[in-house]
Amino acid sequence: MTELADLGVMGLAVMGANLARNAARKGFGVALYNRHGDKTDTLVSEFGHEGRFSPAKDLAGFVAALAKPRVIIIMVKAGKPVDDVIDDLVPHLDDGDIVIDGGNSLFTDTDRRFETLKSKNIRFIGMGVSGGEEGALEGPSMMPGGEREAYARIEPMVTKMAAQVDGTPCCTFIGPGGAGHYVKMVHNGIEYADMQLITEAYDLMKTVYGLDAPAMADVFKQWKSGDLDSYLIEITAAVLAKTDSTGHPLVDSIVDQAEQKGTGRWTAANALELGVPLTGITEAVFARVLSSQRKLRLEAAKALPFKQPAGRKAQAADLDAIRDALYASKIVAYAQGFEQMTAASQQYGWDLKLGEVATIWRGGCIIRARFLDRIRDAYGSETTLSNLILQDYFRDAVLKAEPGWRRVVSLAVEHGVAIPAFSSSLSYYDGLRRERGPANLLQGLRDYFGAHTYRRLDQEGSFHTRWSQDGSEVKV
Amino acid sequence: MTELADLGVMGLAVMGANLARNAARKGFGVALYNRHGDKTDTLVSEFGHEGRFSPAKDLAGFVAALAKPRVIIIMVKAGKPVDDVIDDLVPHLDDGDIVIDGGNSLFTDTDRRFETLKSKNIRFIGMGVSGGEEGALEGPSMMPGGEREAYARIEPMVTKMAAQVDGTPCCTFIGPGGAGHYVKMVHNGIEYADMQLITEAYDLMKTVYGLDAPAMADVFKQWKSGDLDSYLIEITAAVLAKTDSTGHPLVDSIVDQAEQKGTGRWTAANALELGVPLTGITEAVFARVLSSQRKLRLEAAKALPFKQPAGRKAQAADLDAIRDALYASKIVAYAQGFEQMTAASQQYGWDLKLGEVATIWRGGCIIRARFLDRIRDAYGSETTLSNLILQDYFRDAVLKAEPGWRRVVSLAVEHGVAIPAFSSSLSYYDGLRRERGPANLLQGLRDYFGAHTYRRLDQEGSFHTRWSQDGSEVKV
Repeated sequence: MTELADLGVMGLAVMGANLARNAARKGFGVALYNRHGDKTDTLVSEFGHEGRFSPAKDLAGFVAALAKPRVIIIMVKAGKPVDDVIDDLVPHLDDGDIVIDGGNSLFTDTDRRFETLKSKNIRFIGMGVSGGEEGALEGPSMMPGGEREAYARIEPMVTKMAAQVDGTPCCTFIGPGGAGHYVKMVHNGIEYADMQLITEAYDLMKTVYGLDAPAMADVFKQWKSGDLDSYLIEITAAVLAKTDSTGHPLVDSIVDQAEQKGTGRWTAANALELGVPLTGITEAVFARVLSSQRKLRLEAAKALPFKQPAGRKAQAADLDAIRDALYASKIVAYAQGFEQMTAASQQYGWDLKLGEVATIWRGGCIIRARFLDRIRDAYGSETTLSNLILQDYFRDAVLKAEPGWRRVVSLAVEHGVAIPAFSSSLSYYDGLRRERGPANLLQGLRDYFGAHTYRRLDQEGSFHTRWSQDGSEVKV
Repeated sequence: MTELADLGVMGLAVMGANLARNAARKGFGVALYNRHGDKTDTLVSEFGHEGRFSPAKDLAGFVAALAKPRVIIIMVKAGKPVDDVIDDLVPHLDDGDIVIDGGNSLFTDTDRRFETLKSKNIRFIGMGVSGGEEGALEGPSMMPGGEREAYARIEPMVTKMAAQVDGTPCCTFIGPGGAGHYVKMVHNGIEYADMQLITEAYDLMKTVYGLDAPAMADVFKQWKSGDLDSYLIEITAAVLAKTDSTGHPLVDSIVDQAEQKGTGRWTAANALELGVPLTGITEAVFARVLSSQRKLRLEAAKALPFKQPAGRKAQAADLDAIRDALYASKIVAYAQGFEQMTAASQQYGWDLKLGEVATIWRGGCIIRARFLDRIRDAYGSETTLSNLILQDYFRDAVLKAEPGWRRVVSLAVEHGVAIPAFSSSLSYYDGLRRERGPANLLQGLRDYFGAHTYRRLDQEGSFHTRWSQDGSEVKV
């Protein structure tokens, strides 16, 4: 009889398989189950030497191979497949067993599953896992939510599997119910914004300054050594530098239609629900949608001619301005995302520790970046931080970047380069930093047609003007 | 015994009361019921002379006062109150009676109520009613959805109550289930965009050119006689021209915090779900949210100084450019809203007639505007119109407005005026009209970290580059 396994992994597509190998490499015994047995066989035959695997042919065997209380991580497609797998699994489980959903589930689904399984004495953990294939294998960032006691049971395992930064694992307990999947959702939303900003910088360098892919790869490589230092900037340089088998830059042959799987949309929809002005991420989602409408774009390109101004020769200062626009817009996107998590924490009663969230995003995940250290500091030192942009470091960074940011937005507008995230972030910034905005007029209009009332600067209370009667103002 | 009433109105707050008066003025007998009887009494004592009213003290009396099959319109706050009223009412009804919800209900709630009531042989109509208090009384735009046969029963009544434009009533059957409330939701979303664009124009005139409220009132009055001719432009002039009891412009004393009730948010959230790039309306929603965060803005105004460039003297061409920016952005917002309705029609199987929607929005409602005639023409003549901007009239209008639009966005950026809707609409336009966007880079990044694959311009199929293995490209 072999030793019982520490962890069971259900669903052995690439993410599941890599998480299983990660656990095995760290010395844990891993039971394996996949609906189609060939995936299990492949994993064991190719990587069986990496650790202790217990492949199972059926669920009964899978469950029997696990030490109690059992810890099982499900790695299947979000949505109905998760419910199906849970339904299949639960009859085989005992009270106190722990089921972890490691996919990109919608947090409200996780809340629901948490409650359902709780009523069956199964402890459910919704855990965001970021880092793609490589992260899953080498150490991802992990965002588990559910019950702290259940987390305590898996903590020794997941903190070893997670990426480590300066000796700190990129995994911590996030909060109750769906909080872990929520934070992963916002992570992905920020990832959308990050990538959109990179493509806008790319588009400007290409369209306004005529830089080719290798030249742009060099620019991004340079940026990597500054404030923008991050995984996404690093791999942008790698993608731009890549030539395909024809010897030409690969990127020039890729179709310009972005795809998406849903977490960005969820983030934006949730921001609308919570009433958080999440402009950067939302514009990024819409930009992907517009890019995907290629047939319409080809039609529009014919119908809507544009006289492209002559290209310019890029000076160092021009590229610096693009970098500044990217950095300032990135700060806006993160500030908005963190504001959203603050609002969610209040709304859902989660008590999220945003400094810890920033800490576990420093490694393993797609948005890992040097400046997450700064965000960690910001939320570590100021528990009442109302907006990231107002914290000294980020305030100074934005103020420094601001002149370049404005120049770049104007330049893009002149050259017909679409910069939804750059410009939307700047408008957000200009709306935020203005003591007196123009919404007074809007309130006047609402009162005019809908008697919605308005408040006055000089008096307390709500007022209505009897616009279509005698025009007098009444306190209501 | 008095004659039985043609229509029952439940809920006699100002919208309900005015609809009841509207029906009575048109010669219909109207039964009245309100949970608190004083509203009923007030209505009858003040306006009883306008027509045949049958006030009821309780639901049994209310229902008994109505001719069969009964037609009852509910005018209460959206959400639970609607369900409560329906629950109270249904036990008193007979098979075939018609219940109309005239509030701003979420269309999915309407779908649900339609099905529930259908199972009880009650015919349910979800009807959007736009036009505010005045519209309700003088003739609103009405957007009924449900079953066409039920609509046929109420058609003679509602088409008389609706606003009339060139002899055509601003009311037509929209589609099944929640389609009517859906179209009303998008109407409100467009209204958000319209108002945001107006506030951006106002902010520019005030901040860059130093115009005072009366001067701006004149500008809007002028615009009213051109392409921008619309109710909202008209009342903007009226609001800006208004002085309060101190003799100063009222608008200067109104607090710059916009409020909202939910339909704008719903519109944006639905666009995310359908995958429609609804940037204009969504930015308008977020701008209202940001304006409402006044405490944060006051804090930010201190922390984030901005050196305001010197003001300029407004030349006619400058104001024309602002008008052009407003008009082009407005066209974008409508194009996006109509694209959303096209997508919804397909997704939900509604077969919406967008030409008819434009027709009934020409009068009565808040967004009534001259250019809805053009939208009607566009959807009347081209059933396969892929985007409003590509139709001759709107294409020419946007191309004509484009130079001013670009100048205004750059100017706002230079002067620190937040223009989320102007600039987002321009970025949408630049994204739409470009044959080759930058999303190829984004797809490259997604393939790098997530093996999400990409397509190539020069070959069919999906590809993956083995980035962290041998760098070769494989067809998948």
